[in-house]
Amino acid sequence: MFKLIKKSKSGVRIGELTTAHGKIETPFFMPVGTQGSVKGISPTELEEMGAQIILCNTYHLYLRPGEKIIKKLGGLHKFIGWNKPILTDSGGYQVFSLGEKTVQKSKESLVKITEEGVEFKSHLDGSKHMLTPEKVIQIQLDLGVDIIMPLDVCPSGKATKEEIKNACDITLRWAERSKKYFDIKIKKIEPKKRPLLHGIVQGGLYEDLRREHAREMIKLDFDGYSVGGLAVDHETRNMWKTVKLMGEILPENKQRYLMGVGTPDDIIKATKLGMDMFDCVLPTRLARHGSVYVKNRSKYKLINLLNSKYREDGEVIEKGCACYACKNGYSKAYISHLIRSNEMFGLRLATLHNLWTYIKLTKSLRDL
Amino acid sequence: MFKLIKKSKSGVRIGELTTAHGKIETPFFMPVGTQGSVKGISPTELEEMGAQIILCNTYHLYLRPGEKIIKKLGGLHKFIGWNKPILTDSGGYQVFSLGEKTVQKSKESLVKITEEGVEFKSHLDGSKHMLTPEKVIQIQLDLGVDIIMPLDVCPSGKATKEEIKNACDITLRWAERSKKYFDIKIKKIEPKKRPLLHGIVQGGLYEDLRREHAREMIKLDFDGYSVGGLAVDHETRNMWKTVKLMGEILPENKQRYLMGVGTPDDIIKATKLGMDMFDCVLPTRLARHGSVYVKNRSKYKLINLLNSKYREDGEVIEKGCACYACKNGYSKAYISHLIRSNEMFGLRLATLHNLWTYIKLTKSLRDL
Repeated sequence: MFKLIKKSKSGVRIGELTTAHGKIETPFFMPVGTQGSVKGISPTELEEMGAQIILCNTYHLYLRPGEKIIKKLGGLHKFIGWNKPILTDSGGYQVFSLGEKTVQKSKESLVKITEEGVEFKSHLDGSKHMLTPEKVIQIQLDLGVDIIMPLDVCPSGKATKEEIKNACDITLRWAERSKKYFDIKIKKIEPKKRPLLHGIVQGGLYEDLRREHAREMIKLDFDGYSVGGLAVDHETRNMWKTVKLMGEILPENKQRYLMGVGTPDDIIKATKLGMDMFDCVLPTRLARHGSVYVKNRSKYKLINLLNSKYREDGEVIEKGCACYACKNGYSKAYISHLIRSNEMFGLRLATLHNLWTYIKLTKSLRDL
Repeated sequence: MFKLIKKSKSGVRIGELTTAHGKIETPFFMPVGTQGSVKGISPTELEEMGAQIILCNTYHLYLRPGEKIIKKLGGLHKFIGWNKPILTDSGGYQVFSLGEKTVQKSKESLVKITEEGVEFKSHLDGSKHMLTPEKVIQIQLDLGVDIIMPLDVCPSGKATKEEIKNACDITLRWAERSKKYFDIKIKKIEPKKRPLLHGIVQGGLYEDLRREHAREMIKLDFDGYSVGGLAVDHETRNMWKTVKLMGEILPENKQRYLMGVGTPDDIIKATKLGMDMFDCVLPTRLARHGSVYVKNRSKYKLINLLNSKYREDGEVIEKGCACYACKNGYSKAYISHLIRSNEMFGLRLATLHNLWTYIKLTKSLRDL
C-alpha cells in the first residue's frame, strides 16, 4: 500500500510503498534483472548500493527456467537470493518487441493477438505459447513477486490513433479479467504477504485516449498505476505533455510507475510531474558498452570509456562518487583497459557506477 | 625470503614467504588474473576467499595496456586495486603458445628465437615485438610486482630430447643475463620493497637434463625456483617422477613453484613431493563452462551444471561449503539457469566456488 508523506518543494512525491517484502521509499529506481540477475551484479552489491527493489521479466522467466520450477524451489526471491521486493512486468512488452524483431527477419508475424490473449513463438526455440491475462497473473503469483503487472497491449511508436484506441480497449478488457482473477486468487494469501496489482494506462500521446483509459482503469481500483507506451521511441517523441497529464489525473494516494523511462534527467523531470517508480535498461546496457554517467553541475552526461583519451587517465570516473568503482579508486584507464580486453570485471565496475548514479539520484530527489 | 617452518606428517612444506606486499603462507594457490583481473571476480572477493597472491601475465599486460602506462599510473597493484602480492610470469610461455596457434593458421611462424631473445607478432594486432631477458625483467620491475619470472624457452610436449636440451641451454644463458640485469637494477630499490626473482628449471621428463639444469640454476642463487615445462600436455604424460626429483634436488630453504599445475588432486600430490606454489587456469576456465568441483571423500570431482539434471536441483553445489555461492544458498538450478542464459553472474558464482575450493584446499594441506 502506498502512503504519500509529502510533496517536496519541487513537486516530488515523497512517499512509502509497503510490499510483502518490505517498505520502499519513493521515488525509486528498479535495476533490471531480466532473467533473474542484474547483469553481472550480485544481490549483495545491489543492497550495498541502496537498491530497494529490482525488476524481473515475466516473459523471460516463464520461458526459462519456467515459473513452475521457480515455485517448486521456493519462489523467485529464494531462487535469485534477493530478499527485498521484486516487481515483474507482464511479459506483453517482450512478446511484442521480441516478436517484432523476429517478424522483420522472417516476414511472418510470430505474435497474434486475440480476445483470449496473445499467441507467440519463443525467441529461444520457436515453440508456440499462449499468454492470457489470467495466465500472466498466475505466473507472477507462482513467482511470488511483490508487484504484478497485468497483460497489456503496448502499441509501437508508429501506431495510428485507431490502433492505439484498439490497444486501449483490449488492454482494458484484459485488465478487468486480470483484476477478477487476481482478486479470487489472493483470497488464499494472508494480507501481509499479498502482492500489489497495477493497472496499466495506455493511449499513446493522445490526451483524450489517455484520459478515457485512465478513468476506466481507476474505476477498477488497482493498487497502483503504470504509465505504459512512453518508453517506446521516446527519444524521437515528446512524451512530457502526457507524463504531466498522467501526474495530474492518476489518484494521489496510489503509486505511479513510468514504465521503461529513462535517462537520469528524464527521471528527475518525471518525478517533478508526479511519477514515483522507474525502471530502465540504460544504466546496465550502456555500461556494457563502456558508457558511464558523469554528473556535470545538475545534468548527467555520458562519457565512453573506450575513447582512446582514457587509456592513460588515472582518475576515477567521477570525483567524490561513492560507488564501488570510484570509492575503491579504479581509474578510467583500468576500466577502459578491462572493457577493451573483454574482461567481465570492467563491465561490472561500469555497471556498478551507473546503477549507483540512478539510485543515488532518486534518493536525493527526496531532498529537493 | 622463504622460511620453512616445518614439514607436515604427509611431507607438506609449511612455510612463509615474505614479499614486498606482505607474507604468504605456503603452500598456496595463485588465482590467474591474466590481463590484470581474475575473470569476473573483484579484489574484495579474492580477499574474502583468502587468496594471498594472484598471478598476472607479463605478455598480456606488456601488449595491453603496456607496462609504461601502468608504471605511470602508480604500478600494477594500484592499477588493479590489489594490495597483496602479485607474481608475473615471464611472457615466454604465452609467446610460444599463442605463437603456435597462429602458426597453425597462417603456416608461417610468428615466433623466432635467437640468442638475443624472442621475436614475435602480437596476437592482438600483428605488430612485431622483441622480448629479451633484460627487457622481460624491466617490464616486471616497471609493473612493480613481488615475484618475477625470467624469460625462458618452454618446449612443447612433443619436443625431442635434443630440442629440450637446447631449450635448457638457452634458458640458462638467459637466466644468467636476467640475474645480472636484475641485480644491478634492484640496487636502487630499498630491501623491503625489492621483488623476488625465480630461476626456471626446464628439462622435460628427462632426469639427466633436469638434474643438470637444476644444478646450474642453483649455482646462480635465485630467490626461489620454478619447475617449468610440466603443465604442457600434462594430462597425457606422467610428470610425477620429475616432480619428485625436483622436490628432492631443489634447495630446501627456497620456495618451489610448480608452474601451471593443475587439478586439486595434482596439487595435493605435488605438495607432498615438496612443491609450495601453484597457479592454474582450470578453476576459472572450467567455471566459465559450467564445471564445478565437488569434494567426494578426499577426491575432487567435476560436475557440469549445464547437465539437464540440475535444472530443478535446489541444492547448493556442495553442502557445507563456505564459498560465496554455497554460503548464500545459490542452488545448482539457479547457477545452471544463469549460465544457460549467458548471465555473467552465473559464471561469477561458479568461479567463486572453484577458486574457494583451490584456496581452501591449499590452506587445509598445512594441517595434513
